[in-house]
Amino acid sequence: MKTAARQDLSSPQNPLLRALRRALREGEPGADGTFGVEGPRLVEEALRSPVEVAALVAARSAEARLAALEARANGRVRSYLVPDRVFRALAQTETPQGIAALVRLPKRRLEQCLEQPNALVAVLVGLQDPGNLGTILRSLEAFGGSACLLAENTVSPFNPKAARASAGSLFRVPMFRRLKLAESLRLCNQLGFRTVALAPRGGSELRRVDLRGPVALFIGQEGSGLPDAALKQVDTIAEIPLAAPVDSLNAAMAATLALYEAARQRASAK
Amino acid sequence: MKTAARQDLSSPQNPLLRALRRALREGEPGADGTFGVEGPRLVEEALRSPVEVAALVAARSAEARLAALEARANGRVRSYLVPDRVFRALAQTETPQGIAALVRLPKRRLEQCLEQPNALVAVLVGLQDPGNLGTILRSLEAFGGSACLLAENTVSPFNPKAARASAGSLFRVPMFRRLKLAESLRLCNQLGFRTVALAPRGGSELRRVDLRGPVALFIGQEGSGLPDAALKQVDTIAEIPLAAPVDSLNAAMAATLALYEAARQRASAK
Repeated sequence: MKTAARQDLSSPQNPLLRALRRALREGEPGADGTFGVEGPRLVEEALRSPVEVAALVAARSAEARLAALEARANGRVRSYLVPDRVFRALAQTETPQGIAALVRLPKRRLEQCLEQPNALVAVLVGLQDPGNLGTILRSLEAFGGSACLLAENTVSPFNPKAARASAGSLFRVPMFRRLKLAESLRLCNQLGFRTVALAPRGGSELRRVDLRGPVALFIGQEGSGLPDAALKQVDTIAEIPLAAPVDSLNAAMAATLALYEAARQRASAK
Repeated sequence: MKTAARQDLSSPQNPLLRALRRALREGEPGADGTFGVEGPRLVEEALRSPVEVAALVAARSAEARLAALEARANGRVRSYLVPDRVFRALAQTETPQGIAALVRLPKRRLEQCLEQPNALVAVLVGLQDPGNLGTILRSLEAFGGSACLLAENTVSPFNPKAARASAGSLFRVPMFRRLKLAESLRLCNQLGFRTVALAPRGGSELRRVDLRGPVALFIGQEGSGLPDAALKQVDTIAEIPLAAPVDSLNAAMAATLALYEAARQRASAK
């Protein structure tokens, strides 16, 4: 095992610490593409994912945890130890666990991700709740999804709540942001995807919709659902039959069910 | 439409307001069985559910919302208007919407709920996250569940976060609290349920587990899962196949998938 390059920092004005604080607070990557993640579990997920961990930062009281993470990184990461009060000032969680990191995702080409055989893609259209987004990323990875398209001002996947709910999947599921709905539909059609909109009613039962082959699942906003333009232009609308008086499911649950159903059909087809 | 019995209250020391504040803060029913719910949507759900709305309380600035709820209640509810600052002091949400209520669930007999034909029951064993609990109640109702058993210090369903995530299902799904795991298993066996534990691995694929007929789904704690005693004593362990490196799903997602799969199998069997 290599010895990790570890350094002590004490000034909150240190450029690295300022960058980390900004990244955690804004939940958006900075100009250099790095974003902040907090908590030992997420940082461990980053270390076992194909992402660049640009810096590992720990509070002095979390030195044992830092050492364990350095060992896992096998010398591949620069780490920094800071006083507890400095860490608390940069952390965004209420009870910080003393571990954070600056992480950079690899660049990915959209077409390359979509051109996989039998690609299963989620297209999020204006999703607002970061917990829902994170949950969908986790389900997407769990059920063999190829990519996640984030259209129409969907919340940032780099929001700390989204990162936590993703349980690390945000480090691995290729994501493409700032797309327009029309653009996403055109692209999916060009590449021969079956486009399927999830809606609370007015569609075919989910289990009767063919979800094998290249499929793009369109998922709308929590309150208002998908815009009419999406419902009109997709190949199929799928609904999940619900017992009255329940009239809808949470967006993350509905998406998870559709992804599970796709995986189930694909496994049955083998 | 009858005129609602509406009263103005201004003292935070009023016994009703004190009861509501305590109920919202503690997330537990008081000695008289009433518990607090907050927000116009949840209160509206309460009004359309078979529960007793003992009191409707609104901030003065939410008077129009109150009037709409009173109209819906058709004179069946006592309502109270309070100054905004008094409402803010009793509300637990960060941005209170000016509407709250004291609600009482009907008493239900456990055996009666379980003895329905083809009963589908969730048994939660030590679940800790109120959002997960609320989500499971919502899914349980959506997929035709008969009851929810809360064993081994599962979090309170009257926690405001659980109530919100349930989207009103907590008013309608019969719940039985403070059970022991052993007691729940014995009861399910006595009543002829197939007992199925959800686990991340070591079981049969969910889609291959027969979920028709009377079924009790056992769902464990978020971090540690089900205790060995549960895994050893159930009839079947079911796992949801996941693509590596995902090694588990969020407890609410796993439960939702199992409930969906049960509903799917039951619909296919017809």
